[in-house]
Amino acid sequence: MTETPSSKTAAGRFFEDFRIGEMIRHATPRTLNAGDASLYSALYGTRFAPQSAETFARAIGYPTSPIDDLLAFHVVFGKTVPDVSLNAVANLGYADCRFLKPVYPGDTLSSVSEVIGLKENSNRQTGVVTVRSRGDNQRGEAVIEYVRWVMVRKRDVSAPAPEAAVPRLPEAVAVADIGSACPPIDRAAFDGALSGSPHRFEDYALGERIDHVDGITVEEAEHMIATRLYQNTARVHFNQHSEGQGRFGRRLIYGGHVMSLARALSFNGLANAFHIAAINGGRHVAPLFAGDTLFAWSEIVETAALPGRADVGALRIRTIATKNRPCGDFPLREGEAYEANVVLDLDYWALAPRRP
Amino acid sequence: MTETPSSKTAAGRFFEDFRIGEMIRHATPRTLNAGDASLYSALYGTRFAPQSAETFARAIGYPTSPIDDLLAFHVVFGKTVPDVSLNAVANLGYADCRFLKPVYPGDTLSSVSEVIGLKENSNRQTGVVTVRSRGDNQRGEAVIEYVRWVMVRKRDVSAPAPEAAVPRLPEAVAVADIGSACPPIDRAAFDGALSGSPHRFEDYALGERIDHVDGITVEEAEHMIATRLYQNTARVHFNQHSEGQGRFGRRLIYGGHVMSLARALSFNGLANAFHIAAINGGRHVAPLFAGDTLFAWSEIVETAALPGRADVGALRIRTIATKNRPCGDFPLREGEAYEANVVLDLDYWALAPRRP
Amino acid sequence: MTETPSSKTAAGRFFEDFRIGEMIRHATPRTLNAGDASLYSALYGTRFAPQSAETFARAIGYPTSPIDDLLAFHVVFGKTVPDVSLNAVANLGYADCRFLKPVYPGDTLSSVSEVIGLKENSNRQTGVVTVRSRGDNQRGEAVIEYVRWVMVRKRDVSAPAPEAAVPRLPEAVAVADIGSACPPIDRAAFDGALSGSPHRFEDYALGERIDHVDGITVEEAEHMIATRLYQNTARVHFNQHSEGQGRFGRRLIYGGHVMSLARALSFNGLANAFHIAAINGGRHVAPLFAGDTLFAWSEIVETAALPGRADVGALRIRTIATKNRPCGDFPLREGEAYEANVVLDLDYWALAPRRP
Repeated sequence: MTETPSSKTAAGRFFEDFRIGEMIRHATPRTLNAGDASLYSALYGTRFAPQSAETFARAIGYPTSPIDDLLAFHVVFGKTVPDVSLNAVANLGYADCRFLKPVYPGDTLSSVSEVIGLKENSNRQTGVVTVRSRGDNQRGEAVIEYVRWVMVRKRDVSAPAPEAAVPRLPEAVAVADIGSACPPIDRAAFDGALSGSPHRFEDYALGERIDHVDGITVEEAEHMIATRLYQNTARVHFNQHSEGQGRFGRRLIYGGHVMSLARALSFNGLANAFHIAAINGGRHVAPLFAGDTLFAWSEIVETAALPGRADVGALRIRTIATKNRPCGDFPLREGEAYEANVVLDLDYWALAPRRP
Repeated sequence: MTETPSSKTAAGRFFEDFRIGEMIRHATPRTLNAGDASLYSALYGTRFAPQSAETFARAIGYPTSPIDDLLAFHVVFGKTVPDVSLNAVANLGYADCRFLKPVYPGDTLSSVSEVIGLKENSNRQTGVVTVRSRGDNQRGEAVIEYVRWVMVRKRDVSAPAPEAAVPRLPEAVAVADIGSACPPIDRAAFDGALSGSPHRFEDYALGERIDHVDGITVEEAEHMIATRLYQNTARVHFNQHSEGQGRFGRRLIYGGHVMSLARALSFNGLANAFHIAAINGGRHVAPLFAGDTLFAWSEIVETAALPGRADVGALRIRTIATKNRPCGDFPLREGEAYEANVVLDLDYWALAPRRP
Repeated sequence: MTETPSSKTAAGRFFEDFRIGEMIRHATPRTLNAGDASLYSALYGTRFAPQSAETFARAIGYPTSPIDDLLAFHVVFGKTVPDVSLNAVANLGYADCRFLKPVYPGDTLSSVSEVIGLKENSNRQTGVVTVRSRGDNQRGEAVIEYVRWVMVRKRDVSAPAPEAAVPRLPEAVAVADIGSACPPIDRAAFDGALSGSPHRFEDYALGERIDHVDGITVEEAEHMIATRLYQNTARVHFNQHSEGQGRFGRRLIYGGHVMSLARALSFNGLANAFHIAAINGGRHVAPLFAGDTLFAWSEIVETAALPGRADVGALRIRTIATKNRPCGDFPLREGEAYEANVVLDLDYWALAPRRP
């Protein structure tokens, strides 16, 4: 925790404060409970059956409804912000995100990050910091692990550059490395009328595209309530007084809020893809603001059996979210660049039950 | 679940997809917990004592605080939307709604609907579908049952009309059929200082009118958070991009949100009418929009002892809600039509403790 | 409960309805649970470790995470509004607020007030009512006690003035009277990496000033959701139809919402001041409205050991909150008056762990 000279206020780390191999334990641990699950439901309208109904969860093999994967992710992520990205210019990307253990109401999550990459930019004003962050539960078990890299300001432009270190990251999480957060599923008990879809793993074809149809408009109160629920303190989301004078003239919506909205929209077409097992990569292509309406579509970019498991299969899904533009024609590129309304390009592995 | 030809996206049923006698099991079951009760409280500011305090609930005979009746209703209702009213032009009305068993935190609700009425309109473009919907708990016990009818678009105007079937519905739920969701109440333990009113069942007179005085302004974030909490997916509530081009130019507030606001306002005058036992009918006279301020007044239109019960009596209450107009002069009609600011005309049975 | 002549609607007490020594039992008791704690977290983004994580709370000596002190305060306060301040012209101040017992999820709070001061104003239109209010838990134990005074309208200007009674109130709560809501703390187990700061009681110096740096913009939906969560029914917060025609032309934000925002901001600099033990006094200097951005700074105005306790020490903190003005230069006075952007001047005792 770096301090300003005159006070006890945390000013966040600058580029030259990071050291390769350093482990950072983050404040504040957080117990997730049924109230958090209700709020998450009310913020996104998510309807995946195991997370919605204890009866459904138990019928297929969970001890109770798990906490939504992205709620757990946002909470683990939020803790890293004061130490890693308070002085970030940009959140550049994330990769190799694996959901390792289920999270249940009552579990307490804490976060720790290891600095695995440092590279000063040629302008000498900023550098790219890469961290591998891990969320642990109250038993010290890792529940989520992921890598992200951010561009961080230097405090002192003349500070010497560290030796450049750029970690090698997988283009996608290997199938052998996913699924441990999903207990054995009783696929015969996976009731398609209750879950909202008859489609099983085998029903999704490589290259299949799904327009999720619905649109959802975002309000300032909603994204701020969500982002505070995650104890994410990044200033750009909350402070209109400063953001009004900034680049966009308004508060920026947390990228994870966009991911959760897109995931909730994807229920319409992917209702049985009930568990996010890994996030291969994500790119926040453009900012989303209050008043914008989010739409989404998905493509099945890979399908894979899981080693040793006959209960579920893995769908690698690329979900594209747009603002103020329906996705019936699957917008993505305009020449080299993204289509102007695209805001999110997300690549993840989800599990769906196999046919009985 | 009807699908569009090109994808797995549910497009909702059209008029010709319904068959008389058909049973539709709806997705997604939902476990209600203390977090949902807290959110409901925060969205409406409801203050009825048994739902607010476990101590009060236990003192009068509940095992714990029940889930608010309208919260349970909205959750049961929300599940029917994707199957029944996604292609609805209008939600025409509901009737014969009975609350059959109490719902407690931890209970899981699922919904099923039977098609009991079908009548094509003379324009052949739409038809009226009437369903009897039922909410069940995790033990398979019916907790709520009600009828609603909606005007649904046809997919194909040339599709043949089904034989017209219009169910006969009661003008009001019979007194003999209400009260099963209310356990025996210890009326001596019903503490009027804690509940907010000394008035018992016997203190309300036929024809008595009560102005609920207070007004409450609604924001976009609030009605969307509420409607998502109920997993109600009707597009008109969420998508400003499409609604901005629609009939009203803006998002429509879910009618059930208006009912819950009016019920919460009615505490001021009806504090001891602690349980909604039945809804005889409801009419959403005009739409409510964000920025509008809701007011309400009520009239006691019938009072009735409950067969075999000396603990509670039934008040049949007609609650009128208006927008942007206080209700001190009990606005209702202007000639044949409703007064211009009336938005809701709700007719329900509530239970209140009798004098000890 | 005073009634209007024509209905059962509570109209609130007027000045001449209060009697010195009168005890008022308030409606409605309220069970606080994990859902309320989640909502409080989402509304303010609070991060104090014992309230955030059960593991942290248990490690230092709590049986589980306590309910946030100000959440309990707002709930106790909210109940008094319908009886004490519905006809208030202004909420003049509060003092001698002591947190007596911890509140845990599952506890039910109810409120009672004793009228301890009455003084008619010289204009004979209003008078100052002072009440000592107490929040009790379900075991009848007092958990919070405080005094507040409000200016209340008379119903009848010609009603005779009561004998003036002005209670003597302490300028600050005595150190001997604080700390009973805090169990013995294992200060060696108070992990500064998890709590967000290495600074202990001994690290804070008399006169030290801390700029809390961050700003947070408030939306209408947020303050109304919060104020309803507390079942506070004061009309000025909710009714744009009437407030639009009133003094400010808009809804006023509940003063307690401002206190909670300032407290959450103060985490950045006071992370280990984990428990509010007493509020010596508070002044809402100017109103806050939706769209405003709140900032805050604090000064350590006294430090004190607690009699008989080596685990925690008491910091007397004065927190100043401003709107639309960062606090890097510690704004407070302009001549005799408050600086134009100051909205809150709060004086409280917080506990922090001592050095092991």
